[in-house]
Amino acid sequence: MTAETSRDLTIAEVRLTPILIADPPLLNTQGVHQPYTPRLIVEVVTADGTTGVGETYGDTKYLELARPFAAKLIDRRLTDLNGLFTVADEVAVDRSRVHDQVDVGGLRGVQTADKLRLSVVSAFEVACLDALGKALGLPVHALLGGKVRDAVEYSAYLFYKWADHPEGVVGEKDDWGAALDPAGVVAQALTFKERYGFTSFKLKGGVFPPDEEIAAIRALAEAFPGHPLRLDPNGAWSVETSLRVARELGDVLEYLEDPALGTPAMAEVAAKTDVPLATNMCVTTFAEIQEAFTRGAVQVVLSDHHYWGGLRNTRELAAVCRTFGVGVSMHSNTHLGISLAAMTHVASTVPNLHHACDTHYPWQSEDVLTERIAFEGGRIAVPDAPGLGVTLDRDKLAALHRRWLDDDGTLRDRDDDAAMRVADPGWVAPVMPRW
Amino acid sequence: MTAETSRDLTIAEVRLTPILIADPPLLNTQGVHQPYTPRLIVEVVTADGTTGVGETYGDTKYLELARPFAAKLIDRRLTDLNGLFTVADEVAVDRSRVHDQVDVGGLRGVQTADKLRLSVVSAFEVACLDALGKALGLPVHALLGGKVRDAVEYSAYLFYKWADHPEGVVGEKDDWGAALDPAGVVAQALTFKERYGFTSFKLKGGVFPPDEEIAAIRALAEAFPGHPLRLDPNGAWSVETSLRVARELGDVLEYLEDPALGTPAMAEVAAKTDVPLATNMCVTTFAEIQEAFTRGAVQVVLSDHHYWGGLRNTRELAAVCRTFGVGVSMHSNTHLGISLAAMTHVASTVPNLHHACDTHYPWQSEDVLTERIAFEGGRIAVPDAPGLGVTLDRDKLAALHRRWLDDDGTLRDRDDDAAMRVADPGWVAPVMPRW
Repeated sequence: MTAETSRDLTIAEVRLTPILIADPPLLNTQGVHQPYTPRLIVEVVTADGTTGVGETYGDTKYLELARPFAAKLIDRRLTDLNGLFTVADEVAVDRSRVHDQVDVGGLRGVQTADKLRLSVVSAFEVACLDALGKALGLPVHALLGGKVRDAVEYSAYLFYKWADHPEGVVGEKDDWGAALDPAGVVAQALTFKERYGFTSFKLKGGVFPPDEEIAAIRALAEAFPGHPLRLDPNGAWSVETSLRVARELGDVLEYLEDPALGTPAMAEVAAKTDVPLATNMCVTTFAEIQEAFTRGAVQVVLSDHHYWGGLRNTRELAAVCRTFGVGVSMHSNTHLGISLAAMTHVASTVPNLHHACDTHYPWQSEDVLTERIAFEGGRIAVPDAPGLGVTLDRDKLAALHRRWLDDDGTLRDRDDDAAMRVADPGWVAPVMPRW
Repeated sequence: MTAETSRDLTIAEVRLTPILIADPPLLNTQGVHQPYTPRLIVEVVTADGTTGVGETYGDTKYLELARPFAAKLIDRRLTDLNGLFTVADEVAVDRSRVHDQVDVGGLRGVQTADKLRLSVVSAFEVACLDALGKALGLPVHALLGGKVRDAVEYSAYLFYKWADHPEGVVGEKDDWGAALDPAGVVAQALTFKERYGFTSFKLKGGVFPPDEEIAAIRALAEAFPGHPLRLDPNGAWSVETSLRVARELGDVLEYLEDPALGTPAMAEVAAKTDVPLATNMCVTTFAEIQEAFTRGAVQVVLSDHHYWGGLRNTRELAAVCRTFGVGVSMHSNTHLGISLAAMTHVASTVPNLHHACDTHYPWQSEDVLTERIAFEGGRIAVPDAPGLGVTLDRDKLAALHRRWLDDDGTLRDRDDDAAMRVADPGWVAPVMPRW
């Protein structure tokens, strides 16, 4: 027994709750978001009843890993965060679930066994930090060395979208309407600005031929002169197309995100344009950094703390980026308030964060918190309450879990390609580069 | 006021105590250790009286920075560790104290303003972590994410040395005797093994012509077959000499440390030998990493947490090294038990630490702790007591500070070159490469 705080920091219980959350019909190069998307909520409970929460991807392959991993955490200490990676290494990954190439379908870069493990670890790490913060009376940012800013800036995440999910598909209504052309994109951006105060805008591209998306960015530049703008086609373009877009939009883009797929193509683009290239597809693991940085393939890495294995690994990624003169900011996939709080805490501690972070949060009409996290002027105030500073709403959690239980399996694994085929039976996931 | 632990974590007082500690007549390529060397002991005291200790270089240029820095810490919180670097940036550095080239005389690599600041920050960071650990009831390693090993291995740090300081020089006696040839080096290594159980050995070279040092390593290899051996001439050799030594000792060396001076020369050596090159001279700051790693100039970075700005930065350095497939271990300059405890805590948390760390500690007959830190089988058990797990001895501290106060200024800045001139008035610090 070691000398320690009067609180017992031993993990006594771990609860895993897969849920399905409503998602609007947002379009990307692979298809469209399903009406409900899976997430996994993790709760870590200490011997004396302190609970911490975490959140990660909820597809079956993550769940299959999370269950044995959770079992191994019982009787370990909350503070053994470095040890989480060792524990993760002991959990077998079903090899049929992984492939070492860029996972185009998932839009999440390579899908290695290690990355799958890290995505699971991240939820437990965040839950441990939340519980530890509550036990010690410290906010999570203090456990990461303390915030260096009081608020974190986020970017409006614009999507081409339909007004509704395809006819006959069960789903929730949203009040955003359709956005399928430059005017629709600008209208959406205005709503974002009005509702949340965002002043920087990212458009998820790769949906329409490049000229249409160039026109949308031009329309945004006219509507919001001088505001940072970004375009992200998820690797849908050839090197030539990427360079053409860079030439045509170079005067208004803050950066171009993953115009082409993979480090070699990105390096080729980067060599011939001054427009900075950002990525959350060719650099999504520590193993991919050396080649990409050495070749100058990316100028901004968009960290997703789920991919990278948690908040402490995100800080290490930021340190690597700082050392190599590469920028860092944050990627977002569909997520809830727990992950938004986690992102806000870690972002507040990274000195070299010079771009507004992405977040899907405004698109999520449902959450598992008692109170939604609020944006003010496009920013989230960094909470100083113990832990993450969020409270789980058990009724909401139970309802969303019920939806997962009731699902026959079709929605438990996100599949934008399949969702698109519902509307367009002839749809075939495009071969990259698409244009 | 934010929600927080019941302990008040506000810094109410900072105490700086410069001291002079006994140092044996150890030889290096620049000269010989003075009989006493300066160190700075830092104490951080919280509003409710929790005290944390730290230690760093004590030369005047560090003291000049530490004083204004300490003043700025009052009323800040212990947990604001990321903010220490911002505070440090606000402290003016006397430009005449720094030079952006390799500081041959100091054997400590480049001496930039930033590095000077980081060396000062490190003592305060360690003191804050010690106090924070005590306030929260957690060992420092737990504040760094938890130990991944229960003991940290150290290496015997062999030196060519005289039996005594030069005649007429006031200094302490030591019982190690002289070591000026292969037999003397082997005898010293045996004593190290007997007293502390070390099983890996490093010889500080650059003192005698390479053939004599090659003979010493050969003698060690014969006396300790199969044990890891290292030779460190502090950049005293040309590329050609470095390659010759690598050829002659390649079969017995774990690594060769800083054979040649600076990244270009190291890269040239590395390109032509399979013997791994370690460094604490060409990569001593984050700014030096990119060139050295891109050129493959070093295979092991020896971190000195003082240079690098503390324990958390040391972990970030380890992450950068891991990402680029470069090894990491720890350098040591003359230091006391506070820094040894700090090294042990951080080393216990670094997964990719695959070499025994250096330490001068066995050479230091004096310390400021109530109890000396013990080696067992060449290892130090990682303390689980709150904070660093060490206790300051105020009487010892006062006595060593008295020595500093009584000094007329000649010993307050370490100068191995000047110390050598006392014995050999004709001594001129060698121009590199020396051989």
